[in-house]
Amino acid sequence: MYVVDAIPRTQHYTFDALKLDCGRTLSSVQVAYETYGQLNAAKDNAIMLLHALSGSAHAGFVNDKGEQGWWYDFIGPGKALDTERYFIICSNVLGGCSGSTGPGSIDPATGRPYGLSFPVITVGDMVRAQKCLIDGLGIETLLAVVGGSIGGMQALQWAVDYPDIVRSAVILAAANRLSAQGIAFNEVGRQAIMADPCWQNGDYYDGTPPRTGLALARMIGHITYLSEESMHEKFGRALKGVDGYRYGFFEDFEVESYLHYKGNRFVERFDANSYLYITKAMDYFDLPDLASIKSKMFIISFSSDWLFPSARLKALVRSLRRKRIDVTYCEVQSSRGHDAFLLEVAPLTDLISGFLENAGR
Amino acid sequence: MYVVDAIPRTQHYTFDALKLDCGRTLSSVQVAYETYGQLNAAKDNAIMLLHALSGSAHAGFVNDKGEQGWWYDFIGPGKALDTERYFIICSNVLGGCSGSTGPGSIDPATGRPYGLSFPVITVGDMVRAQKCLIDGLGIETLLAVVGGSIGGMQALQWAVDYPDIVRSAVILAAANRLSAQGIAFNEVGRQAIMADPCWQNGDYYDGTPPRTGLALARMIGHITYLSEESMHEKFGRALKGVDGYRYGFFEDFEVESYLHYKGNRFVERFDANSYLYITKAMDYFDLPDLASIKSKMFIISFSSDWLFPSARLKALVRSLRRKRIDVTYCEVQSSRGHDAFLLEVAPLTDLISGFLENAGR
Repeated sequence: MYVVDAIPRTQHYTFDALKLDCGRTLSSVQVAYETYGQLNAAKDNAIMLLHALSGSAHAGFVNDKGEQGWWYDFIGPGKALDTERYFIICSNVLGGCSGSTGPGSIDPATGRPYGLSFPVITVGDMVRAQKCLIDGLGIETLLAVVGGSIGGMQALQWAVDYPDIVRSAVILAAANRLSAQGIAFNEVGRQAIMADPCWQNGDYYDGTPPRTGLALARMIGHITYLSEESMHEKFGRALKGVDGYRYGFFEDFEVESYLHYKGNRFVERFDANSYLYITKAMDYFDLPDLASIKSKMFIISFSSDWLFPSARLKALVRSLRRKRIDVTYCEVQSSRGHDAFLLEVAPLTDLISGFLENAGR
Repeated sequence: MYVVDAIPRTQHYTFDALKLDCGRTLSSVQVAYETYGQLNAAKDNAIMLLHALSGSAHAGFVNDKGEQGWWYDFIGPGKALDTERYFIICSNVLGGCSGSTGPGSIDPATGRPYGLSFPVITVGDMVRAQKCLIDGLGIETLLAVVGGSIGGMQALQWAVDYPDIVRSAVILAAANRLSAQGIAFNEVGRQAIMADPCWQNGDYYDGTPPRTGLALARMIGHITYLSEESMHEKFGRALKGVDGYRYGFFEDFEVESYLHYKGNRFVERFDANSYLYITKAMDYFDLPDLASIKSKMFIISFSSDWLFPSARLKALVRSLRRKRIDVTYCEVQSSRGHDAFLLEVAPLTDLISGFLENAGR
């Protein structure tokens, strides 16, 4: 009987060069990744899992630091991505800050961190780096690509760019382009980082990082990941103290404390420049031409997600149908907003495991 | 025949002291106001118009600087607030920065600007200052109180606090409390201001004001005033330049330029500390007890307003009905989001002028 390795380890794959959409070539590229389950002899059970803005390669199980993966509830025996059946690969995105090459990495040309000299990357570049990784692992087809938010954008890009490799794609809470409103929120977050005096035009790696600006960007982002409904359920107008309003510029309300907590925790694990690069890649993402897709597509929206509302995902489904692409769509009823793709374990487990069952046929 | 004064002038009313909800008393209070139309002999045609976050006393007509009032299209002969029939008063809110006493005013106790020593004020305090103003003008009843957003909150507060004075109230795009999401956005805006090194704990009046932080706060706010739909209609993913993506951290998209423009224009006319105080008053606003109201109420929501969604205004209407208060409700179909109360001239003119016709009966 197969025994699951309970302690996953982040590994690193390196390659010499990656040609980018901006025209530049990145040299000495490293991709951090984790795998769960076993690649079968036919090498046809591999699933590429794509993480969202703040994710990392550590998607499943509990690592040696005691940290659960960002999709812990979805990866393991009997879970949506069943490790007794599938070989799951999750890599940190290019431009990220959790082991893959990004703006905080050392530029081999100068021996110093790239900072803003790091090229502006796209979702297409991220996917091209992931393709190098699976090539390195000797994997020629993917049973599925699966991702939510910017992870869903990557899944869509995989399906468009590598139709003969990707057999199916699960796209959660994402569309084939970012809305004007999404761009606007991203830009405000970037401006918050760039307005922090510690940012130093991106050259802060020897000093103090722009914590305040990054926390602010995260707070803005976090509001967009929740729904008005879930914020109301979670906090309402509950006060932090017991004595009513404090009549000062303190945190009066629970919701304020929560945002501060989220912002401050984020800066401990995330690089501000990576935030700039990854949000820019989201903004640039725009795939009008879906005709090349051959994969079975599964599009999942969440009823209270206002960053990627159901109406926009339905429009994507219609575009796919017009191209005679095999597409299934489901709207999951949830009050949890955009974050629902991380939280609605029971309905998503049913939907995804059922879809994967048929994905290879 | 009555001739409309085409050039309104901001006047100032001062009084000695105002007792505040926080327990402190503000001395030497000044309220800036403008009036349009004529008070009739019976003194029963006065309408108090309440402005939103960024408004001022200059609501109607074109002033001597050539500036249109913030509700220009709604004030004048034959308009929603018909100056041939009504006497309209609009005053800058307490805590504001357009002539009324606020954190940028001189503290008579020190001879220096208050800054953060200015007391934290509430919507109730704003309304109490407005009551002093109408007392000073010799007005004993108001035909109507009218306002949108935080102006609507003030209108509601008027109806609750002065049931024997207010004969009717028109509340646009506002509810009897701010949502957790609204508080969250306000807090992020405040943090953006307070993170600006120029803010100097609010004591910046002798130096450079926190322009960057205030612009950022305004950009965040502005996203919440538009709808996803209106942003899509207005900008979509249109690029600023003609040569495609610029692959740098510049403004690539029209929507980014627009937000920067809005942010930068705002800092020229608004005080960052006033932004802190007024948003805090919004956060604190919470009127669970509506039983005292005797006015005829008219509640107007806008279909695409996600800061004060129709569902929340309908809940207010239900609360009023349960108390047997005379209330009319209308949802205006509009793609323009929260800002619709400033923009949907034709439907609002019909609705408001029709309501006012019956308000005094």
